[in-house]
Amino acid sequence: MSTPSDKALVPFVSVDNMMRLVHHIGVEDVLRDLAAYIEADFHRWELFDKTPRVASHSDVGVIELMPTSDGEAYGFKYVNGHPKNTSEGLQTVTAFGLLADVYTGYPVLLTEMTILTALRTAATSAMVAKHLAPKGSTTMAMIGNGAQSEFQSLAMKAICGVDTIRLYDKDRAATEKCAANLAGTGLKTVICTSPEQAIEGAHILTTCTADKQNATILSDNMVGAGVHINAIGGDCPGKTELASGILERSDVFVEFPPQTRVEGEIQQMSEDFKITEFWKVLTGQTPGRTSERQITLFDSVGFAIEDFSALRYVRDKVKDTPYHYDLDLLADPDDPRDLFGMLTRAKT
Amino acid sequence: MSTPSDKALVPFVSVDNMMRLVHHIGVEDVLRDLAAYIEADFHRWELFDKTPRVASHSDVGVIELMPTSDGEAYGFKYVNGHPKNTSEGLQTVTAFGLLADVYTGYPVLLTEMTILTALRTAATSAMVAKHLAPKGSTTMAMIGNGAQSEFQSLAMKAICGVDTIRLYDKDRAATEKCAANLAGTGLKTVICTSPEQAIEGAHILTTCTADKQNATILSDNMVGAGVHINAIGGDCPGKTELASGILERSDVFVEFPPQTRVEGEIQQMSEDFKITEFWKVLTGQTPGRTSERQITLFDSVGFAIEDFSALRYVRDKVKDTPYHYDLDLLADPDDPRDLFGMLTRAKT
Repeated sequence: MSTPSDKALVPFVSVDNMMRLVHHIGVEDVLRDLAAYIEADFHRWELFDKTPRVASHSDVGVIELMPTSDGEAYGFKYVNGHPKNTSEGLQTVTAFGLLADVYTGYPVLLTEMTILTALRTAATSAMVAKHLAPKGSTTMAMIGNGAQSEFQSLAMKAICGVDTIRLYDKDRAATEKCAANLAGTGLKTVICTSPEQAIEGAHILTTCTADKQNATILSDNMVGAGVHINAIGGDCPGKTELASGILERSDVFVEFPPQTRVEGEIQQMSEDFKITEFWKVLTGQTPGRTSERQITLFDSVGFAIEDFSALRYVRDKVKDTPYHYDLDLLADPDDPRDLFGMLTRAKT
Repeated sequence: MSTPSDKALVPFVSVDNMMRLVHHIGVEDVLRDLAAYIEADFHRWELFDKTPRVASHSDVGVIELMPTSDGEAYGFKYVNGHPKNTSEGLQTVTAFGLLADVYTGYPVLLTEMTILTALRTAATSAMVAKHLAPKGSTTMAMIGNGAQSEFQSLAMKAICGVDTIRLYDKDRAATEKCAANLAGTGLKTVICTSPEQAIEGAHILTTCTADKQNATILSDNMVGAGVHINAIGGDCPGKTELASGILERSDVFVEFPPQTRVEGEIQQMSEDFKITEFWKVLTGQTPGRTSERQITLFDSVGFAIEDFSALRYVRDKVKDTPYHYDLDLLADPDDPRDLFGMLTRAKT
């Protein structure tokens, strides 16, 4: 049997190799690099082919495809969301992604994206906070200490200069896990026993809890002036974390409005609730933070362009490392019209 | 580093292994089996989550995602269409697909689908012809002798009892390739020098040419009464093969009307042009062929449910064979909330 041609082989990054790649570069450097790739793609937001994710819902969860393209590369992510999985020892969210060449339609990278999504979500949060949080922000409240919490904390350190994380979770074991994981990273962690205690003195308030319900993790009277709220956990219909009064007092920044109005914190608000597309802050079309006392709020749900940036990054970084191997994913007969002949010859 | 758990590993069928699997079972048996799986899924058509494909167009081609679900399994296919690729030594169409468990959202199969799509397209054509072609059809005209032609021919033999294929392509080399590939399969082939000659005495007329244009492969006066037309090549906007007069004289059967009206032969016709959804013939809701002199026409564009059937088939058949290996595609920490801990521990 003849060996497949180069073009028929697709570089694959397994979970194991993704972890090796991340340690090879260094976690904080990866977060900084990802933030730079994402910021660059937000700058050229208008040229992307944008579509809300394509979702297949069931009683217990959702499976989504998130495609986008910049005209040269095409990327998509497969991601599921099954809140009940945790109780069965499975991940709530797993993901993988693919990057392809628009000119040929041939895939050029297949990669795990569970870890990569955690990294790109944190890098996006910190990139946005760098532009919107009060100058000199050094303390973050981290409410919800699940799978995303350490990534958020390290990204805020690497990109915004945060040095102290005030941790709270209704499950104390989650907080202890997070504090233990952050030991030795250079971050000071403070274990708190209530959300109120966690936000004391914090400049950045990050909410990232997992319950699929309209919860009130932050109530209106808890949030004072001059903070940046990084709202991660409200990310699908029926799942929000903030009291609507907070949204009314904040300047709200979003990724892609058609998706955020359905999935984000602003699903609680009227359809004409005023929001700002964050990419317009980067391009200078709209102001970001304009006063010290302002409350800025990033209502993040995760958008396909962030995954695209992450796929570009992995493609660029992995190629000169051993952290990938080739998959024989594409049939590539010598004569493109002779697929059947290739099949027949494989018999011998 | 600990080994990933079973659930984190996704069985992968490479091109090489797909070819081995097909020869292990036998090409004609695979075509017969696929036709049975597809027919079974057409029978339960109404319970599928159906959506037109999600397409990303460029000047030179298209990249599409075709998802569907029956409520228990979820499948999607990635497929590109780049007509100019052939001239660059690449495939016009390459594809891969994934099957996942709706209950957990975890993928259960990743497979090449370039070869599998060729097989499922032919199996679909023959399954439909079995129900619509005149009784005792033994001769097929195969117009367009590219990558799909041998698969169509063998499927019509295996499923409909066709014994003679009359070949025509404007490129004589393609015809000779097809005839050579079919030698030894038990099919009699007749090399023809015009479409008119190819359809002489044929009961089934299959058109499958590659040019992306509104062409007239069959003109109105060429098609007499009492035949079945299997129109494969008209499968995207701006690409048709049949004169509209043929459509007017035929009873036209389609897969999924919202997709076929945009991509199929009937894109030439008005929006209310009468068509029949083929699944309704299978369930007995609508008649298929009702007279010997009737012209039946299957305006096939390929639909996600056919890929779903093919994915189900490969999942069922491959598991007890050596023709797959596991990919470490999903991060699966012991504690689902401790993704960061898994990453950290991987360093040591």
